[in-house]
Amino acid sequence: MAASVTRKLIESHLESGEPTPGEEIALRIDQTLTQDATGTLVMQELEALELDQVQTEVSVQYVDHNLLQTDEKNAEDHEFLRTAAQRFGVWFSKPGNGVSHPTHMQRFGVPGKTMVGSDSHTPAAGSLGMLAIGVGGLEVAMAMAGRPLHLRMPEVWGVRLEGELPEWCSAKDIILEMLRRHDVDGGVNRIIEYHGPGLSSLTAMDRHVIANMGAELGATTTVFPADDAVRTFLRAEGREDDWVELLADDGADYDIDETIDLAEIEPLIARPSSPGNVVPVREVAGEPIAQVVIGSSANPGLRDFAIAAAMVDGRQTSPEVSFDVNPTSREILEDLTRMGATTSLISSGARLHQAGCMGCIGMGQAPATGHNSLRTMPRNFPGRSGTKEDRVWLCSPETAAASALTGSITDPREWAEDAGMSYPSLQLPERSSVNTAMLVPPLPAEQAQQIQPVKGPNISRLPDSEPLLDQLEAPVLLKVEDNISTDEISPAGARALPYRSNIPKLAEFSFTQVDESYPRRADEARSTGHIIIGGRNYGQGSSREHAAIALRYLGLRVVIAKSFARIHWQNLANFGVLALEFVDAGDYDRVEQGDTLKLVDLHQALDGSDPLTVENVSQKTTFEVRHRLSPRQAEYVLAGGLIPQVAQENTEGAAQAATEPRQ
Amino acid sequence: MAASVTRKLIESHLESGEPTPGEEIALRIDQTLTQDATGTLVMQELEALELDQVQTEVSVQYVDHNLLQTDEKNAEDHEFLRTAAQRFGVWFSKPGNGVSHPTHMQRFGVPGKTMVGSDSHTPAAGSLGMLAIGVGGLEVAMAMAGRPLHLRMPEVWGVRLEGELPEWCSAKDIILEMLRRHDVDGGVNRIIEYHGPGLSSLTAMDRHVIANMGAELGATTTVFPADDAVRTFLRAEGREDDWVELLADDGADYDIDETIDLAEIEPLIARPSSPGNVVPVREVAGEPIAQVVIGSSANPGLRDFAIAAAMVDGRQTSPEVSFDVNPTSREILEDLTRMGATTSLISSGARLHQAGCMGCIGMGQAPATGHNSLRTMPRNFPGRSGTKEDRVWLCSPETAAASALTGSITDPREWAEDAGMSYPSLQLPERSSVNTAMLVPPLPAEQAQQIQPVKGPNISRLPDSEPLLDQLEAPVLLKVEDNISTDEISPAGARALPYRSNIPKLAEFSFTQVDESYPRRADEARSTGHIIIGGRNYGQGSSREHAAIALRYLGLRVVIAKSFARIHWQNLANFGVLALEFVDAGDYDRVEQGDTLKLVDLHQALDGSDPLTVENVSQKTTFEVRHRLSPRQAEYVLAGGLIPQVAQENTEGAAQAATEPRQ
Repeated sequence: MAASVTRKLIESHLESGEPTPGEEIALRIDQTLTQDATGTLVMQELEALELDQVQTEVSVQYVDHNLLQTDEKNAEDHEFLRTAAQRFGVWFSKPGNGVSHPTHMQRFGVPGKTMVGSDSHTPAAGSLGMLAIGVGGLEVAMAMAGRPLHLRMPEVWGVRLEGELPEWCSAKDIILEMLRRHDVDGGVNRIIEYHGPGLSSLTAMDRHVIANMGAELGATTTVFPADDAVRTFLRAEGREDDWVELLADDGADYDIDETIDLAEIEPLIARPSSPGNVVPVREVAGEPIAQVVIGSSANPGLRDFAIAAAMVDGRQTSPEVSFDVNPTSREILEDLTRMGATTSLISSGARLHQAGCMGCIGMGQAPATGHNSLRTMPRNFPGRSGTKEDRVWLCSPETAAASALTGSITDPREWAEDAGMSYPSLQLPERSSVNTAMLVPPLPAEQAQQIQPVKGPNISRLPDSEPLLDQLEAPVLLKVEDNISTDEISPAGARALPYRSNIPKLAEFSFTQVDESYPRRADEARSTGHIIIGGRNYGQGSSREHAAIALRYLGLRVVIAKSFARIHWQNLANFGVLALEFVDAGDYDRVEQGDTLKLVDLHQALDGSDPLTVENVSQKTTFEVRHRLSPRQAEYVLAGGLIPQVAQENTEGAAQAATEPRQ
Repeated sequence: MAASVTRKLIESHLESGEPTPGEEIALRIDQTLTQDATGTLVMQELEALELDQVQTEVSVQYVDHNLLQTDEKNAEDHEFLRTAAQRFGVWFSKPGNGVSHPTHMQRFGVPGKTMVGSDSHTPAAGSLGMLAIGVGGLEVAMAMAGRPLHLRMPEVWGVRLEGELPEWCSAKDIILEMLRRHDVDGGVNRIIEYHGPGLSSLTAMDRHVIANMGAELGATTTVFPADDAVRTFLRAEGREDDWVELLADDGADYDIDETIDLAEIEPLIARPSSPGNVVPVREVAGEPIAQVVIGSSANPGLRDFAIAAAMVDGRQTSPEVSFDVNPTSREILEDLTRMGATTSLISSGARLHQAGCMGCIGMGQAPATGHNSLRTMPRNFPGRSGTKEDRVWLCSPETAAASALTGSITDPREWAEDAGMSYPSLQLPERSSVNTAMLVPPLPAEQAQQIQPVKGPNISRLPDSEPLLDQLEAPVLLKVEDNISTDEISPAGARALPYRSNIPKLAEFSFTQVDESYPRRADEARSTGHIIIGGRNYGQGSSREHAAIALRYLGLRVVIAKSFARIHWQNLANFGVLALEFVDAGDYDRVEQGDTLKLVDLHQALDGSDPLTVENVSQKTTFEVRHRLSPRQAEYVLAGGLIPQVAQENTEGAAQAATEPRQ
């Protein structure tokens, strides 16, 4: 069989299982990526797992999310991460070095390798021919400890690119076209692999844009071949030696086939408040705007800033618009500065921010209520900007820059015609300004063992967990709609993010954007625990495991939904919350918030795959649900989560060792 | 009599009074400066005063304090300020354009002019030969309405500079030497005028450093002559036509004389947590640090960044240090970028932030608890950084850069010797990159009248005020030490600053750094009102009138202190709070928090200047206090503040007009 790049990556790392869609497989993991918003828990998990030194080829701890430091908590998290990274043999990327995804690509990405990261945009590394998957922090911790990643083999979705993009369109418009076609759950349980002649016109950083926002389709990951474009990229980074060719065999088989003719792409934009609300820019042109933000891991490349700089060069942005520029790494900022583009941006009226995630994760740059904000970012879930009633749109740097100049949503082709400007031909440097001043390398193991991670007063320990009860009778405290994101379950933003290392405090923010009373009601129902009812694609978006841990801490025992987003589903299992799906989605309508549900014989039910019957005590009805846990997963859900299970294994191992004769 | 620059400035703007120290004078005001943290109230005051168009030559509204936008409130304040500025004929400097003081100097400062600003560092404009005074927002509003500024004529303190600074010392070390000699209240009721041959080696921007931090001495303002250095500066800004020579007469008289031999200056540093705790850097060298911040209005100039850039060029800052660079204006950032200095800074590991006040006002960059942070900023009051138990030190860019490289407090002379570096000779551009893309000019009056300022939900209206009662019996809810700053009375920082337009909400933060229970206790005592007892220099620091209004809102009626800082004293009067001084400072020790005090015949007492007797009902004792109000001030304190008095005048004027025959 002619193998795809995906299949080659999986087969070269397969530790167990059969790579047939739906079957559980285990993969050896070469690299890990953690960022600060999820990393403090990962470090606490490594402590709970009693790890000495990481077992991966490369593990990197980035600090890119919480950079505002509005009080001491952020700085104390940074200090904990720096010293914990030293303790466990992890690279440390200092605050201000850059967003994890482009920085990792620049300094550490290697074709043919596997990676897990506690950030949902980890798949961006697929741009280099890696198999990179966003998972919960605990699974990253397990990979750091040398354990394989378990997942159900997804379908492989081959997307053949033909032709070339028209002028004033760029990679962002390709992924927006995918979202226009398939919406935010079109990629669930799929790996997207791009192939075909259209690839030759896309640089590695263009592919990063597409791979990054594959997360918005719900895809497990996105994969590109490691071809000459990847070699060119690695050469520019002074790492050509890291290049290995990795191509699909001719006529490779895919489970699903699709074609995009790039020549037919036009400038696209996602309306508020979902990345799936995609329309042509021309259809919404003229809407007044108050803010434009360029940057983020969805448009992180030098060209993404350079094209905007070329467009605004010698011009002035609208007096009514805040034009915010978020460099994605200091390397890119340095290159931009050397080529004069920084000057063009500043001179046009840009606010130049530090390198980091910034407004993409709601850390600053919140727009005024009801005012339109255009961003080159990957997500526009409601409230993610930090403003409850926000109006955030997602678009390409070309559309963003044209709109910043006019003060309203503008098709860059229209603007170019009015401005008499032809599409800029960018002269990007062949060699990037590689500099590792903000990358702190791991210590030798014997020195690392001397390090005591520094814990400020805001760093708590993980809450204890309990085994799953065999029977549960508990109220439905919340019933929510389709496509609820982890931003809504456990908000990011400047108020909540500083508590990412403090579960009891963070729990107080749970679901408050949806229902402010939920944390209080959950606390009142603590004696019985409680249940949440969800719609389709429950838990989409960010990989933050806080959305499982904090709610578990509040007494969440079961979520029943029409379907789940993959990472959050796994996080629920990791922390002992039972995720169940309606057998008949219509039953969703027959459960009300406030109903009491009763589930019995849970232990036996998890032993098989038959549907369970749920009794609705309030409505005096029953309905059927099913779990999708593998036997391995069922085992640790029963144990109360992965950590108690590993602890139990360690204890049993120790007990067994104690009874064995000494060597 | 040979006249000083100060006297010439005052005499050319004198509307009434005799400029003899201690006498009240009234000065015509040419320019005003407001920033966002104080400006939203100024705009609300202009509305309360029913102003149509500003009467000054130039009024500018800057947005430099609240730039983080952690939720919608900041952006909504910006929108209110932008539209209110349009309504009243005020220039609007957009968020990201720069810190008010250096930006004003670059674009608007004119020798020989007077200015008031609702920011305590307004005196920085003294560097251009202006008389620039920081006052409460309401007095700025009155100046915008064309009314003169009233103040008691200060003493004029001539500081003769001789010699030249040694290498590795700069202007910051001169003002730190002044603080070493005179501490934070050495300048109270004084105007400092620098003169002498040492001036010739100080550029206008060097003088800005010194004039800016004159505020830390408690001085009314600082004045420099408008000499060739000022001409050179204005030429670089493309405004040589604005230059007029303004020099002291030979042998000018000063009320106080002092001399500093610049050749004897050495690198100095203010220890935590007062700008007055100054010691030589060499005495504290070796203390480990976690953060270095360069920037702020206290070291805003191109050279301040360029010297640091030259020192770190080709080197790497310590892995344990966060090296934060806060450009003070986009013009300076553009110049730095053009000259390559931005690249040197980024390459050494700097975090480059947007142009603005940032950490100086506690908007981000808060250090970890107990970790040393070295800053080129003007103030290190406890908690001002955003971290309750902070350790902030103030120093020159040279000391900051050397310390960022070594990771501990370092005398730049020692560092230079180790590094084999001679003191850099900087090549600064002769012409600055002038660009007004972020300065929105005032509208023509007829257009302005059509503008309706946009008020988001967080913009409240000013609370009502009541006339002063003739008799008061109320508890002492708080007794505080010497040198309490307005940062402690009404904190800045990322939590409180977003509520700067919302007095009821902001009031909840009052004095919480000193005593968390104060706002609650004040609320409980609302029926009687309450009293605060202060030590020396009560209310030093920032000019924010919130420290008067919010406490007045909570029921504060009287403050009795050993002495007051000038701006806060005036703000108390403006909002109808009676400020009284102990006749015998020893009585401070005989009043306890919780005592009930009784004051009678207040109306009569304010009519004269005799001491009042206060009865301490709890201790069964009495003590004497005095007010220092002029008859004019006493009148509006009796009325409940300046706004009710002006309203009353307007009503009386209208009534009178109604009874007069028509023309």
